[in-house]
Amino acid sequence: MPAACAIEMIHTYSLIHDDLPAMDNDSMRRGKPTLHVVYGDGLAILAGDGLLAEAFALLAREPDDAGRPEIAARKLAVIRRIADAAGASGMVGGQAIDLQAVGHSRGAGALDAAALKDMHARKTGALIRAAAVAGAIMAGAPPARVDAVDRYASWLGLAFQIVDDVLDVEGEGTNLGKTAGKDAAAGKPTYPSLFGLDASKRMAQEAVDQAVAVLAEVQLDRSRLAEIAQWVVSRTS
Amino acid sequence: MPAACAIEMIHTYSLIHDDLPAMDNDSMRRGKPTLHVVYGDGLAILAGDGLLAEAFALLAREPDDAGRPEIAARKLAVIRRIADAAGASGMVGGQAIDLQAVGHSRGAGALDAAALKDMHARKTGALIRAAAVAGAIMAGAPPARVDAVDRYASWLGLAFQIVDDVLDVEGEGTNLGKTAGKDAAAGKPTYPSLFGLDASKRMAQEAVDQAVAVLAEVQLDRSRLAEIAQWVVSRTS
Repeated sequence: MPAACAIEMIHTYSLIHDDLPAMDNDSMRRGKPTLHVVYGDGLAILAGDGLLAEAFALLAREPDDAGRPEIAARKLAVIRRIADAAGASGMVGGQAIDLQAVGHSRGAGALDAAALKDMHARKTGALIRAAAVAGAIMAGAPPARVDAVDRYASWLGLAFQIVDDVLDVEGEGTNLGKTAGKDAAAGKPTYPSLFGLDASKRMAQEAVDQAVAVLAEVQLDRSRLAEIAQWVVSRTS
Repeated sequence: MPAACAIEMIHTYSLIHDDLPAMDNDSMRRGKPTLHVVYGDGLAILAGDGLLAEAFALLAREPDDAGRPEIAARKLAVIRRIADAAGASGMVGGQAIDLQAVGHSRGAGALDAAALKDMHARKTGALIRAAAVAGAIMAGAPPARVDAVDRYASWLGLAFQIVDDVLDVEGEGTNLGKTAGKDAAAGKPTYPSLFGLDASKRMAQEAVDQAVAVLAEVQLDRSRLAEIAQWVVSRTS
């Protein structure tokens, strides 16, 4: 549970910073004005910084590992994994690629399909994988199961991102809680812009099928993880 | 050494974010244009975010604790301490107070001496203390010595900040590597603005004397820590 809270704090920090005028310049999030619109850019940057730092304070503090070296080892493994997901090879790297791709949806500087997939693997996939793996590690899962959960989450992250791009085209602002049509307006490459809507939806379903197949390898295909995978392609907001 | 690198990464992240237009709006740092001037605000925010996350990745990774539970315990204690120093009760909280005090050096909203000291204790003191304490913890120092090093660093941080304010009045941009006279121009309360230059210099020397006295309690008054304390009041940049 502390790891789940830390993941949510890091997720929220990333949304606050990504919404800033210097980044994606979004004014709506979860159906409300974004933090910087209400409190200014300076406090929004600080709120994000604080959430990131406090997430690691929480991970290091709980659960209590006094006299339980196996818990201490798991906590350090989870901190490593989550910090890597947040860092330059993960979310920060993905957002940097995103920032530099804006306005290049076609022609020089545009992301091709491989680069788009790499960007999303860092930007959203890394934290989804870290969340799933952190749960498996803290529960004391054996390495083969941790690895399977990691691969499951990788497919899940891909499906999630494709659906996100599809909803940005098909969804409405009131359902999404954020501004619809934003990506296209910013000239950002998306799955629909590269492959079209129908192919994108098929790709999302295929990714979910792969995720569930990985779960089956370690007898987790009837777990909540499988339900989550199915939800990803059925969500409308 | 990994902890020292992590502290420096967090220090650098804080400088990058504090220099942003949405914060202190500084265009010079270490004698060069600030990061956002060269690469833009978006990448500067991301560079800071990345340094903060990578600092915790490094702290969790090194030194290797495989089969050494006492090292794992020390690493978790150091992560807790450094994350607290970086978070809302430390640097982020101090910078938020600073941000809201700008333009209020006199009259309503101005910081009094106690509030100024609290702001600096969070903004710069917390990381200085965490750095000293991290070294003591990783070296396996007994609790009484860790506590003494913490109190030493608290006095050191106070002296450092007073000298910083004095240099902002007396120093020159070329020596400082940053813009001199910036605080006064921004209407920020400083030690010289509250107490005058001479009294501020006396207060800095008294804080250093206290720092050395604490070291003497645990027979560290002939160590490098004492030399560092003397350097703080003699520095010119």
